[in-house]
Amino acid sequence: MQTEHLALHTDKYQINMIYAHWINGSHLRKTVFEAYFRKLPFGNGYAVFAGLERIVNYIRDLRFTEEDLRFLAKQEENYKPEFLELLRNFRFRGTIHSFREGDLCFPNEPLIRVEGSILETQLIETAMLNFMNFQTLIATKASRIKRVAEHDVLLEFGTRRAQEADAAVWGARAAYISGFDATSNLLAGEIFGIPTKGTHAHSWVQIFGSEQEAFEIYAKAMPDHVSLLVDTFDTLESGVPNAIRTAKLLEARGKRLGSIRLDSGDLAYLSVQARKMLDEAGLDYVKIVASNDLDENTIFNLKAQGAKIDTWGVGTQLITAADQPALGGVYKLVERENNGVMEPTIKISGNPEKVTSPGKKDVLRIVSKENGKAIADYVCLPHEEQARDGGKLRLFDPVHPYLKKTVKDYESVSMLQPIFVDGELVYELPDLQGIREHHKAQLNMFWPEYLRKLNPEIYRVNQSQEAWELKQKLIEQYMSQTEE
Amino acid sequence: MQTEHLALHTDKYQINMIYAHWINGSHLRKTVFEAYFRKLPFGNGYAVFAGLERIVNYIRDLRFTEEDLRFLAKQEENYKPEFLELLRNFRFRGTIHSFREGDLCFPNEPLIRVEGSILETQLIETAMLNFMNFQTLIATKASRIKRVAEHDVLLEFGTRRAQEADAAVWGARAAYISGFDATSNLLAGEIFGIPTKGTHAHSWVQIFGSEQEAFEIYAKAMPDHVSLLVDTFDTLESGVPNAIRTAKLLEARGKRLGSIRLDSGDLAYLSVQARKMLDEAGLDYVKIVASNDLDENTIFNLKAQGAKIDTWGVGTQLITAADQPALGGVYKLVERENNGVMEPTIKISGNPEKVTSPGKKDVLRIVSKENGKAIADYVCLPHEEQARDGGKLRLFDPVHPYLKKTVKDYESVSMLQPIFVDGELVYELPDLQGIREHHKAQLNMFWPEYLRKLNPEIYRVNQSQEAWELKQKLIEQYMSQTEE
Repeated sequence: MQTEHLALHTDKYQINMIYAHWINGSHLRKTVFEAYFRKLPFGNGYAVFAGLERIVNYIRDLRFTEEDLRFLAKQEENYKPEFLELLRNFRFRGTIHSFREGDLCFPNEPLIRVEGSILETQLIETAMLNFMNFQTLIATKASRIKRVAEHDVLLEFGTRRAQEADAAVWGARAAYISGFDATSNLLAGEIFGIPTKGTHAHSWVQIFGSEQEAFEIYAKAMPDHVSLLVDTFDTLESGVPNAIRTAKLLEARGKRLGSIRLDSGDLAYLSVQARKMLDEAGLDYVKIVASNDLDENTIFNLKAQGAKIDTWGVGTQLITAADQPALGGVYKLVERENNGVMEPTIKISGNPEKVTSPGKKDVLRIVSKENGKAIADYVCLPHEEQARDGGKLRLFDPVHPYLKKTVKDYESVSMLQPIFVDGELVYELPDLQGIREHHKAQLNMFWPEYLRKLNPEIYRVNQSQEAWELKQKLIEQYMSQTEE
Repeated sequence: MQTEHLALHTDKYQINMIYAHWINGSHLRKTVFEAYFRKLPFGNGYAVFAGLERIVNYIRDLRFTEEDLRFLAKQEENYKPEFLELLRNFRFRGTIHSFREGDLCFPNEPLIRVEGSILETQLIETAMLNFMNFQTLIATKASRIKRVAEHDVLLEFGTRRAQEADAAVWGARAAYISGFDATSNLLAGEIFGIPTKGTHAHSWVQIFGSEQEAFEIYAKAMPDHVSLLVDTFDTLESGVPNAIRTAKLLEARGKRLGSIRLDSGDLAYLSVQARKMLDEAGLDYVKIVASNDLDENTIFNLKAQGAKIDTWGVGTQLITAADQPALGGVYKLVERENNGVMEPTIKISGNPEKVTSPGKKDVLRIVSKENGKAIADYVCLPHEEQARDGGKLRLFDPVHPYLKKTVKDYESVSMLQPIFVDGELVYELPDLQGIREHHKAQLNMFWPEYLRKLNPEIYRVNQSQEAWELKQKLIEQYMSQTEE
């Protein structure tokens, strides 16, 4: 899965544009693109950046195979053989800066910045967005679920409902970054070392003559890892009593029933009743696992109703981000080479939120030295020094100018890390445990008001005065051109 | 992508169940499972079955690699080495019947029927559902879009918002089955031979000194395939006039501008104005392409408003099936071997719709000989002959018994085709063009009332009297057991 040939996993218009530039002799002109999203998903207060490992592997291995070139040669555009030769020798030689996986991130700040020739920067756009959009989306959804069940065990159970195999596997990884404890998908376990968990299905019970027989055979076969699904026939009348009997048989053999799983019905009521029955049978150590179309809202409500659930198996709603199944990440040109000089560029739009922010930019996270909490993200031009050296900083919101704030005594953390420099991978990909730890530490830098599920406080992402003025200047330049 | 090792693309509980059966000596007991969904997505009147080619390739290539086995050996369950040896030698030797890709399908009828040892039937469940659920979902969504724009050109443009790479590629294929004309994803083109289309992005325009310069360079580079994106600055003030100028330059060279593309703003208004401007300039041959978060509802409404759009580029909403991003396909045990004899089995549930239908079943499509239209699907037991030979057939709906209907003069078409028989692939996978044609022919068998987007007439899926009585018998058997 990590060694796939993905050079053609791109939109045809990228190749067409590269080709037209090549014909025009402009394919090696330098460009700067930035990837960002405009709106947080799920009404959440933050997103969790993910997808970088996949992107790094993709770019590192990016080659056109002979089969790819034969395919391109047959396209209706009749690409010239010399152009295909250019692609045959393609290697990514550009420079990429990126947020780290597990970072909290926000709208309208560059998450990935790509510098290179048009040939390079256009070619990678589609796949990069595809990976960033999906993995960031799922990591964010998982983080919402984690917030409402901070101290419970969370299992990712979505494979059969995932949008094909890659989504299952990379989605499991994204969920793990945000604090899920394990996945049911063995391939994700094999590739990424994520812990894997599994119990049994209804079919296990149906195969045998009775539920009791089925439970006993399962307990005998796997005495150290028994979780019994108790809703095949009737949870409280049949499933739980049979599970209790099985637990007693296990006890007689010096073993312990691990858990029971509820997969249908009223999970609040059933879990309370089951807990009572288990406790009364002296089985307070047996955990209760719940599954059945759970998400952060059902879990939050079940907990509010006093459900006695220790472990949540979350499937469809997480792995598809069902309430908003796409993150609208975009990739926009912010600088271009003109007569050997880099100059900022803008895209105007009738939709004001679609007007781009020109110029290559950095993102600084302004962190209070007093309490270690993040105050704002500050998007500025690379040469701006003010915020970097901790000098007094005026944060202003150009759309809502009354939202003024001056900060001193802060540290500014550069969010865009160098990943590739002139094609060379300079970033050491952290292992997955490291990413999880990093994410946890990042979360701790934010006040709970930003992290709550419903109506979170909006975290400030401000542009520097200079970045803002550059944008105004280009808008006016454009306007005056059209008025001429 | 088609030679991936997917043996571990499964839920761990499948392996755990197989292991427990192996310990118990029951892993070779025969079973019959059926895959189906309970509810149509999007409020549609039908679904379009897809995913079979992927499933066939998966099952044909299903082997555990040494790496897989090393991974399993390290799991906390401590699977015994002899069990891993069993997996090492695993080959699928079961029998599979399935709907064909492009078939219309409906709730609560078996779409795939798998017969084999527990070892086989459990192992393939997760991946099979993953593929069937996603591809059927996208084919169905694409079909809804096709219904509202039957005679327009439909382009799949979703890769950057797809849920990872597999979703982009297999989703493009599913859309093509349902009548989309092309995809932007080159990998899907390479693998499946789907036509690919592409124009240019805003960044193309931004790179150059002016929009007019950008258009001219593009037209010069690719004179036979020019589609110009006209909304980088201002659609009607700048984009369309520049496109018209470019078209005239092309005409002077004996070429023709292919199309302009609108990607923002009010597509109804802009397309009407742009059409007028083009026509007045004598460019009635230039097509108008629209994109920007389109789905069947926006397209339907735009057409109702008289939008002059010839070609629709559909992205996010299609490739993620955004309004319902998962099809809830399930896979349920319907028969099991008991002392050498196959017997039906049932799963009871507090949710009536979750009670399974016991017994291995066939699906017959009852088609009127008079007009070639489908009347109902008839789910019966394999030995039932009545409906197969065209004899008078009483359709009854057990939930709504007043919905009686007697049919004569019909043909019954067996929907479940043999795919694998005792592990041997007996089905010749049709090529993609064949699947598209098949789908078109299938659609023609249904009255438009079943196919409309909003409040479609509900197509009858009836169980045979005998299948229904079997279910009642098993429910009663279970009830009387629990009352004892």
